[in-house]
Amino acid sequence: GRGGTILRTARSEEFKTPEGQARAAEVIAREKLAGLAVIGGDGSYRGALALHARCGVPVVGLPGTIDNDIPGTRYTIGFDTAINTALDAIDRIRDTSESHDRIFVVEVMGRHNGSIALEVGIAGGAEAVIIPERKTDMLALCERIREWQAIGKMSCIVVVAEGAASGADVAATITQITGLETRVSVLGHIQRGGCPTARDRSLATRLGYRAVQLLLEGQTNLQVGIGDKDEVIVQPLERVLEGHNVPDTSLLDLVAATAH
Amino acid sequence: GRGGTILRTARSEEFKTPEGQARAAEVIAREKLAGLAVIGGDGSYRGALALHARCGVPVVGLPGTIDNDIPGTRYTIGFDTAINTALDAIDRIRDTSESHDRIFVVEVMGRHNGSIALEVGIAGGAEAVIIPERKTDMLALCERIREWQAIGKMSCIVVVAEGAASGADVAATITQITGLETRVSVLGHIQRGGCPTARDRSLATRLGYRAVQLLLEGQTNLQVGIGDKDEVIVQPLERVLEGHNVPDTSLLDLVAATAH
Amino acid sequence: GRGGTILRTARSEEFKTPEGQARAAEVIAREKLAGLAVIGGDGSYRGALALHARCGVPVVGLPGTIDNDIPGTRYTIGFDTAINTALDAIDRIRDTSESHDRIFVVEVMGRHNGSIALEVGIAGGAEAVIIPERKTDMLALCERIREWQAIGKMSCIVVVAEGAASGADVAATITQITGLETRVSVLGHIQRGGCPTARDRSLATRLGYRAVQLLLEGQTNLQVGIGDKDEVIVQPLERVLEGHNVPDTSLLDLVAATAH
Amino acid sequence: GRGGTILRTARSEEFKTPEGQARAAEVIAREKLAGLAVIGGDGSYRGALALHARCGVPVVGLPGTIDNDIPGTRYTIGFDTAINTALDAIDRIRDTSESHDRIFVVEVMGRHNGSIALEVGIAGGAEAVIIPERKTDMLALCERIREWQAIGKMSCIVVVAEGAASGADVAATITQITGLETRVSVLGHIQRGGCPTARDRSLATRLGYRAVQLLLEGQTNLQVGIGDKDEVIVQPLERVLEGHNVPDTSLLDLVAATAH
Repeated sequence: GRGGTILRTARSEEFKTPEGQARAAEVIAREKLAGLAVIGGDGSYRGALALHARCGVPVVGLPGTIDNDIPGTRYTIGFDTAINTALDAIDRIRDTSESHDRIFVVEVMGRHNGSIALEVGIAGGAEAVIIPERKTDMLALCERIREWQAIGKMSCIVVVAEGAASGADVAATITQITGLETRVSVLGHIQRGGCPTARDRSLATRLGYRAVQLLLEGQTNLQVGIGDKDEVIVQPLERVLEGHNVPDTSLLDLVAATAH
Repeated sequence: GRGGTILRTARSEEFKTPEGQARAAEVIAREKLAGLAVIGGDGSYRGALALHARCGVPVVGLPGTIDNDIPGTRYTIGFDTAINTALDAIDRIRDTSESHDRIFVVEVMGRHNGSIALEVGIAGGAEAVIIPERKTDMLALCERIREWQAIGKMSCIVVVAEGAASGADVAATITQITGLETRVSVLGHIQRGGCPTARDRSLATRLGYRAVQLLLEGQTNLQVGIGDKDEVIVQPLERVLEGHNVPDTSLLDLVAATAH
Repeated sequence: GRGGTILRTARSEEFKTPEGQARAAEVIAREKLAGLAVIGGDGSYRGALALHARCGVPVVGLPGTIDNDIPGTRYTIGFDTAINTALDAIDRIRDTSESHDRIFVVEVMGRHNGSIALEVGIAGGAEAVIIPERKTDMLALCERIREWQAIGKMSCIVVVAEGAASGADVAATITQITGLETRVSVLGHIQRGGCPTARDRSLATRLGYRAVQLLLEGQTNLQVGIGDKDEVIVQPLERVLEGHNVPDTSLLDLVAATAH
Repeated sequence: GRGGTILRTARSEEFKTPEGQARAAEVIAREKLAGLAVIGGDGSYRGALALHARCGVPVVGLPGTIDNDIPGTRYTIGFDTAINTALDAIDRIRDTSESHDRIFVVEVMGRHNGSIALEVGIAGGAEAVIIPERKTDMLALCERIREWQAIGKMSCIVVVAEGAASGADVAATITQITGLETRVSVLGHIQRGGCPTARDRSLATRLGYRAVQLLLEGQTNLQVGIGDKDEVIVQPLERVLEGHNVPDTSLLDLVAATAH
């Protein structure tokens, strides 16, 4: 038997059906897989649990999303890479944002979650960050923008999580209220690709190593994650699926404080 | 006297007025500048000619736009960097574009010009490129997309120059005609920043070196550019301003041929 | 008064002399600096304490070295950037390391410390990592290399911290014992530059924000660092200077386990 | 039949023997290959000609080396990528080279050829470039270095092609003559990997497209290359193998002129 294989079917529509799961179970039996390590989020974990229920193969989950939105781990595999990609985009915009009377709006990923927007906003020195977890007072933001213009601040970048608003809408609102020109960049799936950072690869290596150990011990229905003290932690997948991860919105105050 | 300085005023609104030019002329006289090397496009060149007319200082222009749209040079300084930036974005999208039933639309810069879209489309292996210089038959494109889907092609990226259409409009049309999901990325000013490539820096060094030589010889109202045989060439700024640069649209056929 | 300024003199030889410190103290008095935030390591911290003793200006230290070798903080500012730079180099070598009968030796920084070598070794999947903190049995390593060759492993990269041995010496030893060809890359100061990663910038923003708060409160002789639970922690500079930071050498076992 | 396949055997020792070529010819016959496009240099081209002589399959060569050392093309596929990789390394060194009394020596690839060293030296603003094509007067270079130190020049980077000298030897000589500290980076195989630049990919696409056209026409023993006017040109492989490509050493004068 081989351990730690990733079934490509995990993302397919077919796999969500009983027939699809039956086919996956057949593959597992035919290949005599000793266990299954699944990298992903909610959907992958539910699929893994269904497979285990159906054919008894041990399954262990590794948290892999770019949104850092999985309970039972401080960081997900992919988050650091996505942030660095978005940061690179913001750096490039900053290069030309100075010496112009323009507001730059950058829409980043995060359908239900402002984690990427917050982290990249702080690292990139964004003047404002708009996230789904907290309502943004656009009038107050535009007031601040006008103050910055008045004191000669040369550069203004607003980061928006797609789950809060579209970049185009935010830009239109700012132009309507302030009369200033805006430029929009929408990163979209650019954030999903690219060569992973050292941190993501180190995390994946450590979690993967532990997942294989657990599978070889015959343990199942678990997630391996990274804890608050940077140690590998293990939780039941069921509990992970019930939980909910929220970003530290107090970081918004840090954005506000450093935007002056 | 010092040669080869760049006046920051060249991009300002003030500089387009006689008063602004008068102030610039004062600075030139006060600093005893031997000459002025201006990097930019049409606007910068007109400003340089106005300054020369006003105060007699020798001026030489270096073609610096990301759009490769300046006559009298095969490449502009900044074009290669912009293409590599856009290519990196496309590579990242390609990483996740496979194994999904989705069309990815990437809007790149080029308000009047499809040069960036064409070059990045070929280098990145885009399935289609939409540019302002040639009308795109959207029905025919959607027909091809459906054929690709039918034969199991896993990945489809459409590059659009902003001057031809917005990425959002192209995506909406594709979804409407084919019923397929689309995802849009809008690069915007991301393409204007970043560390320049070797090619752009080598080009700037060679052109700058020649510009300084010309200024020290007291020559004026000239552009230094790169010729068809990679040699430095010199043309009157007046002639550059009258000319018009067009991309090689035959490259569209290469895109079509390699998209299969 | 202004807070949080960095004196350029902090790295100079002159500054280590009483005269140099007197000059720095004059600048501080003349500019009416409210406090001094120093980014660096041992030398910078000793300079900061000397300045405080001389002229009473509050000083706060931020740990900034690429080696992650400062007590009182889990990570130093610059470490993540250095690792990602070295990782990029290793990725490029890996691209061509397959399908050749060659051993690649990469010498990374770390004069007294194997932190960079360990982290980049794990993230980059190095086959072996040589650090100053633990003696490497070169005969045993060469034995493993011969076994890998025997089973057809296509690629072998050995990472060496400069403090343990020179890359050239390690390569010569491997060639002598195994008869295999070796290729050496010495990263040197390449690791000290480049645009900082999101993590390093986020860390610097958080620590810098806290440092300014402390200085405004009139506190002094402190280091702000990042704790085990990712919280900002504060320690006396004296205690930091007495301490000693060691990397987690158990990571060597992870390297060995994943090298198969 | 399929066209344009690349045989992995092209780099193998076995392939240089009649037996190896016989095996390759069998594969070609069995797979009914319509033709063979070979990317590489001298060795690959000789192998392609041998295969054609043995089994009559049409062969076309594409120039692919990082050294830009193949006749019949202005640029080889891979050269632009290698230069940009080396340039990134030099940029990172430059970041920390200022404000120190140190000379940085960077050894780049180029066993018989200074092309990479020259191009990266100009693009990266190296203070000196040492290549195999022209003898460097080390005493004169050290004299210039001392003058730069005397006038307060903060940064000095010397680029060395491996074919001219080792970086370690150059550094030792500079330290011996000037008494200044030196730091060495040896890029080695770092330059061979990485994601190709837009220019290299565009070049490969254009040459590959033409190669396939030629093979489909049944033409053979040809190289496709890029000409002086950026057009695709075709030459007999025999003539390419007899030729010799030399870099434009007049660029050394440009390095000298811009190093002040």
